[in-house]
Amino acid sequence: MDKKITPQLLKGFRDFLPEEKRKRDYILKKIIEVFELFGFEPLETPTLEYASLLMGKYGKEADKLVYSFKDRGDREVALRYDQTVPSARVLSQYQNILSKYFRRYQIQNVFRADKPQKGRFREFTQCDIDIFGTTSPISDSEIIAATFFAFKNVGYPKIKILINDRQILFETLKSFTNSKINIFSIIQSIDKIDKDRPEKVQKELVDKGIESKEKARNAIDSLVNTKISSTLQKIIDFSVMLGVPKEVIEFKPVLARGLDYYTGMIFEVSLPGYNVGSCGGGGRYDKLIGQLSGNEIPAVGIAFGFDRMVEAAEYFGIISNKNQSNQVLVTIFNKDLLGNSLNIAGELRKNKITTEVYPAEDRIDKQLKYANKKNIRYVIIIGPEEVGKGIVVLKDMKTGEQAKLTIEDVIKLLSND
Amino acid sequence: MDKKITPQLLKGFRDFLPEEKRKRDYILKKIIEVFELFGFEPLETPTLEYASLLMGKYGKEADKLVYSFKDRGDREVALRYDQTVPSARVLSQYQNILSKYFRRYQIQNVFRADKPQKGRFREFTQCDIDIFGTTSPISDSEIIAATFFAFKNVGYPKIKILINDRQILFETLKSFTNSKINIFSIIQSIDKIDKDRPEKVQKELVDKGIESKEKARNAIDSLVNTKISSTLQKIIDFSVMLGVPKEVIEFKPVLARGLDYYTGMIFEVSLPGYNVGSCGGGGRYDKLIGQLSGNEIPAVGIAFGFDRMVEAAEYFGIISNKNQSNQVLVTIFNKDLLGNSLNIAGELRKNKITTEVYPAEDRIDKQLKYANKKNIRYVIIIGPEEVGKGIVVLKDMKTGEQAKLTIEDVIKLLSND
Repeated sequence: MDKKITPQLLKGFRDFLPEEKRKRDYILKKIIEVFELFGFEPLETPTLEYASLLMGKYGKEADKLVYSFKDRGDREVALRYDQTVPSARVLSQYQNILSKYFRRYQIQNVFRADKPQKGRFREFTQCDIDIFGTTSPISDSEIIAATFFAFKNVGYPKIKILINDRQILFETLKSFTNSKINIFSIIQSIDKIDKDRPEKVQKELVDKGIESKEKARNAIDSLVNTKISSTLQKIIDFSVMLGVPKEVIEFKPVLARGLDYYTGMIFEVSLPGYNVGSCGGGGRYDKLIGQLSGNEIPAVGIAFGFDRMVEAAEYFGIISNKNQSNQVLVTIFNKDLLGNSLNIAGELRKNKITTEVYPAEDRIDKQLKYANKKNIRYVIIIGPEEVGKGIVVLKDMKTGEQAKLTIEDVIKLLSND
Repeated sequence: MDKKITPQLLKGFRDFLPEEKRKRDYILKKIIEVFELFGFEPLETPTLEYASLLMGKYGKEADKLVYSFKDRGDREVALRYDQTVPSARVLSQYQNILSKYFRRYQIQNVFRADKPQKGRFREFTQCDIDIFGTTSPISDSEIIAATFFAFKNVGYPKIKILINDRQILFETLKSFTNSKINIFSIIQSIDKIDKDRPEKVQKELVDKGIESKEKARNAIDSLVNTKISSTLQKIIDFSVMLGVPKEVIEFKPVLARGLDYYTGMIFEVSLPGYNVGSCGGGGRYDKLIGQLSGNEIPAVGIAFGFDRMVEAAEYFGIISNKNQSNQVLVTIFNKDLLGNSLNIAGELRKNKITTEVYPAEDRIDKQLKYANKKNIRYVIIIGPEEVGKGIVVLKDMKTGEQAKLTIEDVIKLLSND
């Protein structure tokens, strides 16, 4: 076996270098703040589970995307594919410990042996909140409000929540399905009604298998003219009472969401101005946990599209620079004055000022260059003259200005920065 | 394939339910605060790598512990085994992007197909800091200081750092080794000198293969009487200048550390009062990255024993209750007053007060019981009388006291809590 490494990543997998990783951590922090504010509790499950837990749970096509293998003990094991099935396991395994209306957040990586393509990865972060154990529309609204405030807390300029009722949608379209065309296929066509002419959508539906032009037209009209259900209205009203601005939530009768298992309210978040599709979606799924675990536990939740949220945050330029790099580099003037530099670094850190000590003895101009390249805003220089006077030189790398200050003044200045 | 799940975890893997997960998150937060304060930058690498990257890097025995398998594209892949080899890949893959003295922290889970036993798991969190690119003792001291302050920030009552020089250690003992006994084996015996009588240690060394009692005695004496090296003294002095209290660091000539690859300073953290061995250790390894990547990059770092740190934090009772549960439960009096409850929840959250809305319409006593079971400190009740007067009932579940307050007063009270 070669000791040397090949610097190569598996396709569909990513390194997050500091700049990118910081952005991601920042967005996660802002999201988690709101999850906690709403009383959601953190949960973590293992990366590996028995393969039998995951197989057959996501549909036949999905089974092919599960990373599974035999471990050294000859057990069929598999990598986390989503967070819902492991949560269902947790709900059934610890039912006596977990609180009745368990509201949890879970933020872990999942793995899919999918074809890698732009914006689709084989390992990516899922970020879910769910409330288990109640069918009350209050819980739907808690999920919607937590979602809105999480996006708001990250700082997106405009947030839109599209909402629909999966049950009404299905009832409305049931009579138009046949062996050739199912509900999702009908919706997929009708969803284009805003962009395409109705005649084109009508034709597409007939091509797909709806029996006549009249019936196709009928399907379109029924769907587009669907009235909002009283449950959905309640959910919207409650969300507004919880502080979501009225104009954020929009009833959209053509909204379908991909997953099979939704049974009631479904919703989706979009960020107007950043048009690459939904940045998160969810809804009510009252049957799934029962099917999986045998315990009938209703549920409502959302999965945040974390990668898209990071891209959007970048697009809108809303990630503050404060999160990006170190604030101060303390340089080393020479061997004899090294102790002074170390002391000052200790003082700054004691005062919560992010500080790096230049970890070598180099020429000062090299040290300044290093700070510049690393985007460190301030540099502190302590030469023999400064030591004698009990002061330091503080250089602002952004403006190029430098000032001679006492360490107390430096601390005061940088603490307010 | 059965749709029903078996609520079973793989051996050696763990779920972290909210209470436990919060403790872990809290400790991580406190550690990361210090890493950031010291200018370390976050790095994340994929869970899966080419198996060839990991194999042959950790020794023959370790290779057996790597989780590896063929993926659907017939590639041999493997789960992260540690964070050092992936970091070596990163260093060689992005050498033009990374800063010259790259100082990174990395906190991810690693996987080892090890025999599960008490305190040893197949998936566990590693938490590393390293400074790459310099042999200066300043960087050794930065690592030691960051380590000390990270432990201090978590709140352990007493912290001890044992330190030694691997190079001196090897030079001292080289002449006592032979085909039967190697340096690690000698150290293992001599390490008991504090507990056992010297004669016993001497006999053990002879039994292991040292040629004579005299030579064994000589080995013990040479090791125990090793003088501190000037480099090590420098590292200690610099660490003290950076703010580490003098009495924290102790030179221990018998300290060896397990890993082969250390080349200079080695150290270990222990928490006096919690005697289950080291809670983290590290040192200088100037050859490893070169061996792995072909680029000669000196390095110094530490791996925190995160699971042990969690256990120790529990043992010392240093995790604040504030991190454990929701602060307020807003109850629902009845359908008609639901809106008032939702409004108040919105107000509290706007003021950063962690609030859960009871997500159903139940009897008030059931709602109080729920709060009690979930360890929520305060409950808000808004009945018809309260709505009329513009006040709420705030019940302290700990003391049982309740007061009628305006929402402004509730906010004031709970914000200072």
